[in-house]
Amino acid sequence: MATPLTLYYAAGTCAQAVLIALHEAGAQFTLKTLSFADNQQRSPEYLAINPKGRVPALVTERGVLTEVPALLLYVAQTHPQANLAPLHDPFALAQLQEFNAYLASTVHIAHAHRPRASRWADDEAAQAGMRAKVPQNMRDCFAVIEQHYLGDKTWVMGEQFTVADGYLYTVAGWLQGDGVDIAEFPRVAAHFERVKARASVRKLG
Amino acid sequence: MATPLTLYYAAGTCAQAVLIALHEAGAQFTLKTLSFADNQQRSPEYLAINPKGRVPALVTERGVLTEVPALLLYVAQTHPQANLAPLHDPFALAQLQEFNAYLASTVHIAHAHRPRASRWADDEAAQAGMRAKVPQNMRDCFAVIEQHYLGDKTWVMGEQFTVADGYLYTVAGWLQGDGVDIAEFPRVAAHFERVKARASVRKLG
Repeated sequence: MATPLTLYYAAGTCAQAVLIALHEAGAQFTLKTLSFADNQQRSPEYLAINPKGRVPALVTERGVLTEVPALLLYVAQTHPQANLAPLHDPFALAQLQEFNAYLASTVHIAHAHRPRASRWADDEAAQAGMRAKVPQNMRDCFAVIEQHYLGDKTWVMGEQFTVADGYLYTVAGWLQGDGVDIAEFPRVAAHFERVKARASVRKLG
Repeated sequence: MATPLTLYYAAGTCAQAVLIALHEAGAQFTLKTLSFADNQQRSPEYLAINPKGRVPALVTERGVLTEVPALLLYVAQTHPQANLAPLHDPFALAQLQEFNAYLASTVHIAHAHRPRASRWADDEAAQAGMRAKVPQNMRDCFAVIEQHYLGDKTWVMGEQFTVADGYLYTVAGWLQGDGVDIAEFPRVAAHFERVKARASVRKLG
């Protein structure tokens, strides 16, 4: 039986991947939504929970956990009946982890240079230079996902839906705002519709 | 018993974290070193192994795996006798994964804006703007590591050396080139010396 959990979340962020995983797991949890418009992720109250000032953060009875790939594996490991990761096959689990790490360390970063360019340069001209390259970088990333990772599989890991699928759905949802038509990537587009149709995602409203 | 592995590596890169883990695990493996100066990571031969054109890549008998956090957990899971990760405690494993994900998705990225600024903008002025902010961003990241993650512990996870320690050692090794004195972070500096003294790291030469 799952222990009570609290997910700190903000709409449109990568925290959605963890929310989908919790729904898929049938987990008991409380959802607390932060307003980035009001900068609530930098409030003293939230920084006491996550000093990094980001979402997601998952409060468990043993402490706070952050970082999407870590939370996704944690949800899968603590809800094994939901079969959200190949927990008993180190090679397959590494493949899942590889995909999640690619989304976190390369694709999310490629995207973040549009809304969060100020993280990496102070002057406005440099930030504009970063924003200009975002569509190309997202296209390059999704070409890798389309051809190398997804291929003709139903789900990222094959026939079994895993935590990676809600994560890909979340990141693919950023393409339009980044100036890229998801239809350029037919396999990703079809995967997006498959995930969107799941009960866990319909719950997001 | 470990299966034969081949690690594709380049000196000075994050692949060092995986090499340290393999040495700590007592793994049997072949090391293949790529020359980034000669752009060997973009050669057709290497792109056939890792289409992303990056290191590390680990060739196993079941296929190729990439991305440092995935490889670190894989090495730990396939060499359990080396105790390189808390494999039987999902919360502690999530803490380890969180730390590795922070290094991969935030700290490595903060650093990469100096040598790899061209990934995120085409014009030289924008790249110069990114390089200018690298020392500040690395200081911010290492303040989080010093205060939030490392604290007064011997190793990242406490009394037990894990794959996270070789990864932190690798990333901390970039501080000097990024214009930051590791002595600003006394706990990180002491950790760096502890890792440097290990047999696994002395083997790096």
